[in-house]
Amino acid sequence: MSAHPTNDLNDVVHQRHRLGILTIAAESKRVEFGYLREALDLTGGNLSRHITVLNQAGLLDIEKGYEGRRPRTWVSITETGREALAAEIAALRALVARHDP
Amino acid sequence: MSAHPTNDLNDVVHQRHRLGILTIAAESKRVEFGYLREALDLTGGNLSRHITVLNQAGLLDIEKGYEGRRPRTWVSITETGREALAAEIAALRALVARHDP
Repeated sequence: MSAHPTNDLNDVVHQRHRLGILTIAAESKRVEFGYLREALDLTGGNLSRHITVLNQAGLLDIEKGYEGRRPRTWVSITETGREALAAEIAALRALVARHDP
Repeated sequence: MSAHPTNDLNDVVHQRHRLGILTIAAESKRVEFGYLREALDLTGGNLSRHITVLNQAGLLDIEKGYEGRRPRTWVSITETGREALAAEIAALRALVARHDP
């Protein structure tokens, strides 16, 4: 009886800001920190914390460097991250389908 | 630039167990505590805590009574709960659509 779609959701990926980070990261090769912060309307500290969680779970790579003289941070989704995001989206699709008229 | 679908998700509703509780509650008039616990594979304490959060947010009503001599707790989704769930599902639909091939 544990077939309910929300049982297949993974808390690391499901948290809404992390879901946003992964979704955006999956759409391009790499994403700049400031872009994510604005797109997801987060503070830098909050975004940093979520990126660290995703990095520690092996879902996101972090790359630090410079753009001219400005320090920049970029993130990119890993293969494991793509798989975890795909599983989450599949579970959400099943959940949304339950709500179809 | 805050148009990303995850910005429309509501943490009270989005948390995966609460999303499960609301989804199941939306499917019938009222749901018994033990049924929810099994369907969502939660401990009683954990389920209690999530039900309290939803109740305090006005999304779920709690009803205590007896079935024969056994004490029972039932929950039912409120009108506000239905609206919050519908908004969440709409945001998830938008998110899932971004992942469509």
